[in-house]
Amino acid sequence: MRRNQIPALAVRLSALAIVATLTVLAAPDGARAQDAVAAKAEIDKLIVELEEAYHSGDAASIAALYTEDAVLMPPNSEALTGRDAIQGLWTAALADGHQGDLSTKDVIVAGDYAIETGAYKIDMADGTHVDHGNYVVVWKKTPEGLRMARDIWNSNMAP
Amino acid sequence: MRRNQIPALAVRLSALAIVATLTVLAAPDGARAQDAVAAKAEIDKLIVELEEAYHSGDAASIAALYTEDAVLMPPNSEALTGRDAIQGLWTAALADGHQGDLSTKDVIVAGDYAIETGAYKIDMADGTHVDHGNYVVVWKKTPEGLRMARDIWNSNMAP
Repeated sequence: MRRNQIPALAVRLSALAIVATLTVLAAPDGARAQDAVAAKAEIDKLIVELEEAYHSGDAASIAALYTEDAVLMPPNSEALTGRDAIQGLWTAALADGHQGDLSTKDVIVAGDYAIETGAYKIDMADGTHVDHGNYVVVWKKTPEGLRMARDIWNSNMAP
Repeated sequence: MRRNQIPALAVRLSALAIVATLTVLAAPDGARAQDAVAAKAEIDKLIVELEEAYHSGDAASIAALYTEDAVLMPPNSEALTGRDAIQGLWTAALADGHQGDLSTKDVIVAGDYAIETGAYKIDMADGTHVDHGNYVVVWKKTPEGLRMARDIWNSNMAP
């Protein structure tokens, strides 16, 4: 008996370690699907927050949803880098009561990032249509949750 | 001797498996840095190909650098999906001899994707400046190499 106990234990340990290895190797697919669902749900929630902030002209709350070194690329303007510059842009952009609405088309989860493709629509509070078009937002996983690291959009309307 | 041979081998196998496990667990950081360098080098090469195709009006070669289900979001137009639609757009856009130049600002490597932020410049063959602005391209790792899955840009110039 004693002769076989050590190899049995060692083989069991070895099998455990191999299972652990395979689990780690196999993790990406399952983890990716879970990540995609979780990222989509978090983005849905953050978009509600963003829309509420757009509608109330709350540029500080919008800026807080970007990473510290985010790059914002608005049409017909140089790119802006960092939360302060981004808050300045949204303060100016929302001053006339624009009502922005966002609709996610798809989310690609990739490592520590989630790449959102979507459509935006801007109306005035009285319902007058201002603009609509497409956007790509690159969300980054941070300790505070997903935050926008890149934000670029353009209009579908004639110039 | 025989008594110890099996446990020694089993322990060695077990240790190997544990090392393999730890290697897999530890891989992301080192692999990510290597991936970033490799992705940047591949994008540099592909951008040279893209520019050559832009300059010669070769829309088929441009379209081949997108994924089959790529989404292209040109300013002042609906989004286009798929290589055929994308080739159609570039055929029309390059018909008047536009010369596009691209300059990568940064590349974020994320899982099977590389997110490129850059600047474009469009001049006519005689040097007349047409447009300049920013873009985000989401490159996807495919068996053929990196291919563009998302492409969106906008102008820095006044409308």
